[in-house]
Amino acid sequence: MNIDLCLKQIKEHVKKIEYLRYTNNGLLYWDKITQMPTKGNEYRSEVMAYIAGQIHSLSQDERLLRNLAFLEKQNPDDLSIRTNSMLRKIKRNYKYTYNIPVEEYKAYIHLISKAEEAWAISKKENNFEMLEPFLEKIVCYFRKFADYWGYENEPYDALLEYYEEGMTVKKIDAMFIELRNFIIDYLKKINGSKENIVSFDFNNKFIIDNQINMTNEILSMIGFDFEAGRVDQSIHPTILTCSNKDVRIVTNYDKNDFRKALTTALHEGGQGLYEQGIDDELYGSFLAESASMSILEAIADYYENIFGKSEEFLFLYYPKLIKYFGELENISEYDFYRSLNKVEPTFIRMDADELTYNLHIIIRYEIEKDLINGKIEVKDVKEIWNRKYKDYLGIEPPNDNLGILQDVHWFSGYFGYFPIYVLGNLYATQIYEKLKSEKTDYREIISEGRWIELQEWFKEKIFSHGATWNSEELIYLVTDENLKVDYFINYLKEKYDKIYNL
Amino acid sequence: MNIDLCLKQIKEHVKKIEYLRYTNNGLLYWDKITQMPTKGNEYRSEVMAYIAGQIHSLSQDERLLRNLAFLEKQNPDDLSIRTNSMLRKIKRNYKYTYNIPVEEYKAYIHLISKAEEAWAISKKENNFEMLEPFLEKIVCYFRKFADYWGYENEPYDALLEYYEEGMTVKKIDAMFIELRNFIIDYLKKINGSKENIVSFDFNNKFIIDNQINMTNEILSMIGFDFEAGRVDQSIHPTILTCSNKDVRIVTNYDKNDFRKALTTALHEGGQGLYEQGIDDELYGSFLAESASMSILEAIADYYENIFGKSEEFLFLYYPKLIKYFGELENISEYDFYRSLNKVEPTFIRMDADELTYNLHIIIRYEIEKDLINGKIEVKDVKEIWNRKYKDYLGIEPPNDNLGILQDVHWFSGYFGYFPIYVLGNLYATQIYEKLKSEKTDYREIISEGRWIELQEWFKEKIFSHGATWNSEELIYLVTDENLKVDYFINYLKEKYDKIYNL
Repeated sequence: MNIDLCLKQIKEHVKKIEYLRYTNNGLLYWDKITQMPTKGNEYRSEVMAYIAGQIHSLSQDERLLRNLAFLEKQNPDDLSIRTNSMLRKIKRNYKYTYNIPVEEYKAYIHLISKAEEAWAISKKENNFEMLEPFLEKIVCYFRKFADYWGYENEPYDALLEYYEEGMTVKKIDAMFIELRNFIIDYLKKINGSKENIVSFDFNNKFIIDNQINMTNEILSMIGFDFEAGRVDQSIHPTILTCSNKDVRIVTNYDKNDFRKALTTALHEGGQGLYEQGIDDELYGSFLAESASMSILEAIADYYENIFGKSEEFLFLYYPKLIKYFGELENISEYDFYRSLNKVEPTFIRMDADELTYNLHIIIRYEIEKDLINGKIEVKDVKEIWNRKYKDYLGIEPPNDNLGILQDVHWFSGYFGYFPIYVLGNLYATQIYEKLKSEKTDYREIISEGRWIELQEWFKEKIFSHGATWNSEELIYLVTDENLKVDYFINYLKEKYDKIYNL
Repeated sequence: MNIDLCLKQIKEHVKKIEYLRYTNNGLLYWDKITQMPTKGNEYRSEVMAYIAGQIHSLSQDERLLRNLAFLEKQNPDDLSIRTNSMLRKIKRNYKYTYNIPVEEYKAYIHLISKAEEAWAISKKENNFEMLEPFLEKIVCYFRKFADYWGYENEPYDALLEYYEEGMTVKKIDAMFIELRNFIIDYLKKINGSKENIVSFDFNNKFIIDNQINMTNEILSMIGFDFEAGRVDQSIHPTILTCSNKDVRIVTNYDKNDFRKALTTALHEGGQGLYEQGIDDELYGSFLAESASMSILEAIADYYENIFGKSEEFLFLYYPKLIKYFGELENISEYDFYRSLNKVEPTFIRMDADELTYNLHIIIRYEIEKDLINGKIEVKDVKEIWNRKYKDYLGIEPPNDNLGILQDVHWFSGYFGYFPIYVLGNLYATQIYEKLKSEKTDYREIISEGRWIELQEWFKEKIFSHGATWNSEELIYLVTDENLKVDYFINYLKEKYDKIYNL
């Protein structure tokens, strides 16, 4: 055996796994949520379960394991960067897939499916208490998973690491506490501002075809390649990637408010640019995907918020918006810009503005961290939730649906996941500062519609590398610094100081 | 080993193959022709080739082969009808898949891909001669394939058998010669008729949305279940079946003539009813598909021609057609009915009427039979083609595009395939006579729009059984007779005698 032959065999094998992922996680799932006739679901589920099983078997292939063991024995300096990244990725994948005993994992999956059903019922009854037994069991499982996966300091670290390689409570706390305190104080300042920002509660019928045309136009303008992707509709916006040449955005049009379609086009579109920008060469190594969920989120955040809610973008694009939605004729672009950036604490995370959104996430982070680490109990969670909303956002949920029942995540087994949203914002603004320092005519690029230049910069710095680097490595390579909270805080201050005349 | 355990293991294994066929031949192919962005094609082809290889490997699984060998040794009387059918189907499949040496098959596939490209170029240049070397090689391959597959009397029998189990030149000749002679004579009679039938060369812009609504309405009315199927658009109408609960019709709308959408809805819709009507129980046995291509074609022919071009259907549906296409207001339903059934020899098969269509097929059948059996040579084929068109249809192609270049089939390796179109017509009319004899109020069923009763009859007699029976067995079970040409001839005579006042 030699390294070249070994790598060749691994690549051939990994390609097979990628083909099946393309099929199952890409096309079959996309079809399921956008195209499939309802009665097709039962058989589709059988097919998808079979292919998932095939992926699982292929990942345990004996020759693959032998080849990987051979590579492990080599001096990493003798291997390319990509090979080392691939090995790291495969090892991570193994840890999460095989460290949990099969029977235990099956029981967990069964619990989750019951918990999700119970959550839907509890939402209807606006009653959190019935979910407590489920949440207790789920928390127990995640404490055990943390043990199986391993951690240095505290169990919750293991869950953070699952979503964001190298992340720990220590690192996050250092950033989140500073950010939280800043936002809480800053929110008070904003609340004290005398600026009157209208939020325009549209209740008009915005023609769907015009929203579709706007979506396609914006996607084209930011550089989305419609020969290597498409846009469809479903209840929940998302993006499904078959390959870098077949990226499928899923959006949603609301007759009463075109702004959701606008922000979704930019959010999912940003992710689409990322997926389309991944280097062809990365297929066959598990690296043909984004660096991490938080970096993918950072790009989405850049396009949706930093770019899409900027004066430069909105002022340039406003005449086209008026063309699509004549109702805007009576609203000035500046008032529209301010309305899109209005700060107002809300009970529901999904309705939150760019500033207070982070408090929603931090509350969830603080609660799940303490739950997993055993510092609080399930029976106290609702009260803690409500108190934190009062303390941080100044509003107390009047009922469970407007409070702890709003997200299905915990009942779907997402523990350690929420923080990536704030991390995404931090990465986004740090990258954005670097972008501005390199593109000294940044404002002109936006206001003159030369947006392809942004895509090209991101592609060179981030997209093309796929998952060769993890978030920590990538942010250092792109910005010459480790992740810091300062850029985000400065960004928020600069933006809202102006809007609120502070 | 006992029979029950053996059958259980076979079923589990066959299901896996069915899952992958569902994925590859159903969904991935459907997506490729209706949804996929163009640049996605290269990677898609890799994925589809991989899954096809997996299907191939699964079909050679050792335990499956052992189980099949065990069943083969049993007395067929000890096995259920379905088990015997499954065994026969698997044996057929093996013969066609594994009797050709792999290297030879690869070389053939390579030749076909070149031949298809050459065909496209020859069409542009309106020049058949450049295709002759390809056709010679393809014919050589099929002579060899015939030897690999085996036959009793003549090589072409082996190719017929591939598409229609049990079919031979002897059986077909007995029917096709009678049918050909009848149509040639009858065509002369029609040409001598003094009836003036207008064909309405529409050149209007028929609104696509109205054609879509018409298509959906007709499909619903004949019983197509939109919760277990859908309709999409592509260049060539077809149907892709994922499962009996997920059947995807692909149609095509022509702004200048809605009649294509009308006949396509009925043709593909008929096939859709068949696919949706297959019994759930047949999954896991390779029998969850139509009895044969010719029986599937027969159902399509029934809905498109026998039903869809009947007075009863057209008179009932005409007011709705006028609603969609106001241009029809000045045309009486009887004139419209006659225009849809106008007989007029054409150079192009796809433009042919219900009567002369059969001569197009018979010409192809006669030529390919003689080619494979070595009675004629490729260099003479074009001349023979043109002479037969003159002799049978009374028109001589003025150039290759209007003659021998019109179909890609031979250059795609379809030898032995064309006859199923005429066989489909024969099966259709024989089944239709049985239907009328059982449903004595047949005309009322059509003219009162009780079309679901037709679907129910077909489902009980044909659809639900899937491929449990082959065409020969099925026609005997449904009509108590073997296939005869008389029903079709009588049907044609009755129909056109009236229209042409003969």
